Amino acid sequence: MSESHSNDVRVEPATVDDLPLLVQLLVELFEEEEDFNPDPARHEIGLRMILENPKGGRILVIRNDHSLIGMVNLLFTISTAVGGMVLLMEDFIIHPAHRGQGYGSRLVSEVENFARQKGFKRITLLTDKISAESQRFFQRHGYAFSNMIPMRLLLE
Amino acid sequence: MSESHSNDVRVEPATVDDLPLLVQLLVELFEEEEDFNPDPARHEIGLRMILENPKGGRILVIRNDHSLIGMVNLLFTISTAVGGMVLLMEDFIIHPAHRGQGYGSRLVSEVENFARQKGFKRITLLTDKISAESQRFFQRHGYAFSNMIPMRLLLE
Repeated sequence: MSESHSNDVRVEPATVDDLPLLVQLLVELFEEEEDFNPDPARHEIGLRMILENPKGGRILVIRNDHSLIGMVNLLFTISTAVGGMVLLMEDFIIHPAHRGQGYGSRLVSEVENFARQKGFKRITLLTDKISAESQRFFQRHGYAFSNMIPMRLLLE
Repeated sequence: MSESHSNDVRVEPATVDDLPLLVQLLVELFEEEEDFNPDPARHEIGLRMILENPKGGRILVIRNDHSLIGMVNLLFTISTAVGGMVLLMEDFIIHPAHRGQGYGSRLVSEVENFARQKGFKRITLLTDKISAESQRFFQRHGYAFSNMIPMRLLLE
């Protein structure tokens, strides 16, 4: 808590205290996406499961002293293709009031640092087909399209 | 081990004893896919990590007394969209010598049973764009295309 840098922007793991603001960010995100509808109760359940299960994933937030600027949800799994742990990157969102200031780039760089430090061998994200802008953003940061197509079965 | 049913086809969790045959199946699979190259050493590392980490996933095999007919790799993760545990289905493969006999349908049904019994709320798989046949197979079993596109960053 140094006074001189009290408003520095920082990236750090989220805690349970962040839950209400994380839920709000997810509602924003799911309102923008075609495949999903916002459902705050479900988002809170999912976020809490990740926060309470640090072996299964990590939620990183970017913030200053006044606000939560954005979040990303990193899920840990295993790949038989690359032979090791890999990251699934989900729920990457910068709050609309904070866009266009480089915070997204800062956050995506920190995700890559986190992955390299922990020995993850690949990062995969699913981007919405509609959002050409976010696809270009991730391409600029080294992410490449694959030839795979996701198919899903909902069980509820 | 009843004599009368000694050659029944069954679906069950794989064990470390299955590793050599599972690696062979993955080599077959990755030879067919555009995005991946076979690498037996890596496949063995990844398969072993899953077998040794039952909280992170499960490998199911379909077999009779004589042979390993096929496999599927189920990875467990959390979704903030649906608010609960979800399955990633990977490495779904029936050995070429055993195709066209309904074993794939049997295996995909058992995956759905497994998911429902354990309370998973969604199953997602990434299919190769090229393989229209396997896409139709999963569509027949209820899987729907989503509007998401995977992007990846390799860290090696």
